Amino acid sequence: MSDTQVLQVDPTLWKDIKFDDKGLIPAIAQEISTGLVLMLAYMNKESLETTIKTGYATYWSRSRQKLWKKGETSGHVQTVKGILVDCDQDALVLLIDQEGPACHTNEKSCFYRALAKAPDANENTGCASCAGGCCG
Amino acid sequence: MSDTQVLQVDPTLWKDIKFDDKGLIPAIAQEISTGLVLMLAYMNKESLETTIKTGYATYWSRSRQKLWKKGETSGHVQTVKGILVDCDQDALVLLIDQEGPACHTNEKSCFYRALAKAPDANENTGCASCAGGCCG
Repeated sequence: MSDTQVLQVDPTLWKDIKFDDKGLIPAIAQEISTGLVLMLAYMNKESLETTIKTGYATYWSRSRQKLWKKGETSGHVQTVKGILVDCDQDALVLLIDQEGPACHTNEKSCFYRALAKAPDANENTGCASCAGGCCG
Repeated sequence: MSDTQVLQVDPTLWKDIKFDDKGLIPAIAQEISTGLVLMLAYMNKESLETTIKTGYATYWSRSRQKLWKKGETSGHVQTVKGILVDCDQDALVLLIDQEGPACHTNEKSCFYRALAKAPDANENTGCASCAGGCCG
């Protein structure tokens, strides 16, 4: 990592990040202002380094097999304010300021549909991921 | 799926859920009351069915290669109020009421450490995942 990076890295945590057998780590993008989970994507080491150096979320596109700066064509970029790592160092949360919708469908979050609901689920009880109305 | 399930499933979405080449789908557990991202774990079809039938988050333990009802030994169970699916049907968000801490370290969330931060990151600006203080 160079001295020109936008994000400041914890060197102890950095050396222990675990990439899977495909060299990838899942990264959950969460909007800071709302708590909304926007999307789940994957990073390889290069895309994580690029994110840290530029301050913009850059993933590894598994379908296209290339680095993918989120919003590169749509303009819906993700400014990263922090990156959290979990207890076993094999998953990340990116704390994001999202420009426009995160989803290619133009929904704010990619998680805009409910696969299942409890009968007593209440759409008005602070359900952060349901800002899009999916719990209604 | 039987008629005795606790969660009500959208049958159209159910048939399109995509499990990966290992038969797994990543599941993000998010606390409803706070928006906190608690953990990322994996489900196979059986664990997803068990979650829907019982209303308690049940994952597939990749290390132990068996079904894993979260909190089975600790008592820190996760009551599932909703399950969201993303636009390409290969990731889930579980909307959770969490009993006790979600992490085996006794931290509330498994994402309790900051790998990286922006110099201007503000610990007081509604950063949902940082309820544990990791953005401080």
